[in-house]
Amino acid sequence: MNYTQSELSNLINQEIKSLKYSDSPYGLYAPIEYVLSLGGKRIRPLMMLLAYNLYKDDVKTIIPQALALEVYHNFTLLHDDLMDKAEVRRGNPCVHKKWDDNTAILSGDAMLILAYRLMTENRTVDQVEYHPSTINPQYLNEALVTFNSATLGVCDGQQFDIEFETRMDVTEAEYMEMIRLKTSLLLACALKIGAQLAGAPTADANHLYNIGEKIGLAFQLQDDLLDVYGDFETFGKKPGGDILCNKKTFLLINALNLVNPEQKKQLTEWINKENFVAEEKINAVRELYNEIKVREICERRINELFAEAQEELQAVAVEEQKKSELRALFTKLMRRKF
Amino acid sequence: MNYTQSELSNLINQEIKSLKYSDSPYGLYAPIEYVLSLGGKRIRPLMMLLAYNLYKDDVKTIIPQALALEVYHNFTLLHDDLMDKAEVRRGNPCVHKKWDDNTAILSGDAMLILAYRLMTENRTVDQVEYHPSTINPQYLNEALVTFNSATLGVCDGQQFDIEFETRMDVTEAEYMEMIRLKTSLLLACALKIGAQLAGAPTADANHLYNIGEKIGLAFQLQDDLLDVYGDFETFGKKPGGDILCNKKTFLLINALNLVNPEQKKQLTEWINKENFVAEEKINAVRELYNEIKVREICERRINELFAEAQEELQAVAVEEQKKSELRALFTKLMRRKF
Repeated sequence: MNYTQSELSNLINQEIKSLKYSDSPYGLYAPIEYVLSLGGKRIRPLMMLLAYNLYKDDVKTIIPQALALEVYHNFTLLHDDLMDKAEVRRGNPCVHKKWDDNTAILSGDAMLILAYRLMTENRTVDQVEYHPSTINPQYLNEALVTFNSATLGVCDGQQFDIEFETRMDVTEAEYMEMIRLKTSLLLACALKIGAQLAGAPTADANHLYNIGEKIGLAFQLQDDLLDVYGDFETFGKKPGGDILCNKKTFLLINALNLVNPEQKKQLTEWINKENFVAEEKINAVRELYNEIKVREICERRINELFAEAQEELQAVAVEEQKKSELRALFTKLMRRKF
Repeated sequence: MNYTQSELSNLINQEIKSLKYSDSPYGLYAPIEYVLSLGGKRIRPLMMLLAYNLYKDDVKTIIPQALALEVYHNFTLLHDDLMDKAEVRRGNPCVHKKWDDNTAILSGDAMLILAYRLMTENRTVDQVEYHPSTINPQYLNEALVTFNSATLGVCDGQQFDIEFETRMDVTEAEYMEMIRLKTSLLLACALKIGAQLAGAPTADANHLYNIGEKIGLAFQLQDDLLDVYGDFETFGKKPGGDILCNKKTFLLINALNLVNPEQKKQLTEWINKENFVAEEKINAVRELYNEIKVREICERRINELFAEAQEELQAVAVEEQKKSELRALFTKLMRRKF
């Protein structure tokens, strides 16, 4: 049977709620429960289950692996927020604000380990009942290779992201590689692992990986656009943040390449200005982006990536009808309002 | 054939040197190479190889798993040093001093992932050549359960260690449980995984685990003693550090229980004093420890633990002659000079 997105989303949220942690030391596990209770779209486990469901019906078998991705993703948010000295995540104080820096470091480490535990062991996170996974060990080992490569790649991406902050010569290619590592890899890995755990043909698993990469890139480019053209409701946070901190987004990198001398002078002034009214800088840079039409360039790129993802999905060797839920999810992800 | 300790140590050091990292991003991998180049006794991989060698000769097969423990151990040192705001590790500046806090966080995360990669994948850390491990998947999955339980337990131990800093009522039982988690688990896991990867009988694997727990506890109690009675050369760092920061060691906890009212007054004064000459506090507390004979209590406990470990080794169902290298290692570990 084919599950619907909402059936799977409900299943995932219910399973996340029923994750059991050790009671002791409470100071280590309370922040983990807190972070996982803040919600989120749970896109990564959803993608894994949908990919698995292309081939097999017993999606519950791989719930631990699906949760592993969500726990891993939230670990990256926790440590990234600490490194960025962010205040708020999903409308709530970050762990290092609610507790302290050391708690954020150690609870994050424990989450990364929990993610590996879920990826490699059976069912419950109740420590007493841990035992080896019952998934076909060959499938599980292949999935682990995919997972390891994604988890390490996300660190690479975060490192590049940090290094780009102090560079003004980041190229579009470098930027695309950074967001591929930081955002796409985990989506690609979610889809590929879903296929691998179902014993899908390698060609299919690779197509699904490619889809994840492209959807991830498109999603991040949308985020870049939303920061400039979105509003609080559609974006989920206050827009303009990227502009205020001169983040080298797809838009800024392209703008720096396409400006005429007069525009370049204006843009550089805004970038170097230390004292300014936030709204004025946001409006001025947005106005420049409009003049150079970087929004259109970015939207074209998003549409190309989405079309390429659709083609890759076409190439997956299962009946079209089985793909409808995945296709619907991708379309939904690509249709965020501006 | 039975390898000697020094043959295996040479092999381990050579393999650590030949670990290959991605060239890019350099800022992420340079600190990892740095940390692993600082040396150390490489006790954990050595124990794993010696345990494996009780049953099988092809110790090179499990080199990646042995290195995984060393990489994991160094990850914990890296993050612990950051949390403790330590300055120096093995005579060299800590990563967060040589680079910065964010580098220590992210490089540590990457090391934890590399440890899992080595535990679950084949041979090289050259990303291009990763592929699933060729070790019997059943053995590997059992070893993973052991590894996961140790890696998470070490986080628990670190959390307790942090919490104990601000508590004056830590009991001896709580302290022993903390050092079991923080120090013993990884030694126990090293020996058990060595046995598991060789397909040893479960009873043997469990005996080896128990040995690691006891040796780890004894080793940490020795460390507590060395801080008070050792010198720079035998201890590897300046003694007295535990006394200066009122660390609740086996000695202090026992002293607090055994003091008479007059001694209690003196000890409490030293603990609460904010301004003091380091040498004076160290000498005064050492003098109190001598009066109460906590050194003897601690040494008795170490000897008991060591004897229990020897008994457990006796119970391992392989010829005595095969155990000689392991036995020699334990004896060496227990004979650190004061």
